[in-house]
Amino acid sequence: MTTTSATDIVLAFCKAWETRDVDQIMAFMTEDCFYENVPMGHVRGTEEIAGLLQSFIGDAKEIDWVVHHIAESPSGVVLTERLDRFLIGDRWLEMRVMGTFELTEGKISAWRDYFDLGQYQKQMADS
Amino acid sequence: MTTTSATDIVLAFCKAWETRDVDQIMAFMTEDCFYENVPMGHVRGTEEIAGLLQSFIGDAKEIDWVVHHIAESPSGVVLTERLDRFLIGDRWLEMRVMGTFELTEGKISAWRDYFDLGQYQKQMADS
Repeated sequence: MTTTSATDIVLAFCKAWETRDVDQIMAFMTEDCFYENVPMGHVRGTEEIAGLLQSFIGDAKEIDWVVHHIAESPSGVVLTERLDRFLIGDRWLEMRVMGTFELTEGKISAWRDYFDLGQYQKQMADS
Repeated sequence: MTTTSATDIVLAFCKAWETRDVDQIMAFMTEDCFYENVPMGHVRGTEEIAGLLQSFIGDAKEIDWVVHHIAESPSGVVLTERLDRFLIGDRWLEMRVMGTFELTEGKISAWRDYFDLGQYQKQMADS
């Protein structure tokens, strides 16, 4: 038995992005996980989520998610304020994001990220 | 002396929007509060913030902020996942938002809201 908190799990999930390995990232999620990028829509389940995450990882040479703040509600829901950084070519794409994580038996079963889609599109156009 | 938690204060702040009274809302913030709508920019201090909030309240006939999740970090930073609803004419403008609140001596001294600006502009164009 472990005593890993929901907060610890979400921090480890954020850290796992540094591997740029979709399988390692997916290992934190339930098979029927619900994942929503609020401005873009939602997907559900390992196959759909893995495909979407792979598209985000794409050709990134480095990934670094900076967790500015993280807090866990009494019911175990974890809220984060982050800067998600992706090195693409020789430029860092930096997304200011807040996300909510709901866990089931130690795995992420729902994940909702809030950000401004225009912020993303502008950086992609500039790169 | 009270034992009001940072979470209680932020919940009361969200509730205060129902009054549509800028003075009552501003009473929760420090005089030098920093307020950022991440996709739109930031303002600082009572005068600038009050002016901006008044523009949001505008002609809203009702305001209702639904707090889906709220959590407080060990250092007392409060993170929220909300649906901010404004009744304008006969339609509800509904904003899906996450926001971070930092408090100083029981008042909000920094507030950052994350949302998709396009979501807002689309609803305004449709109304």
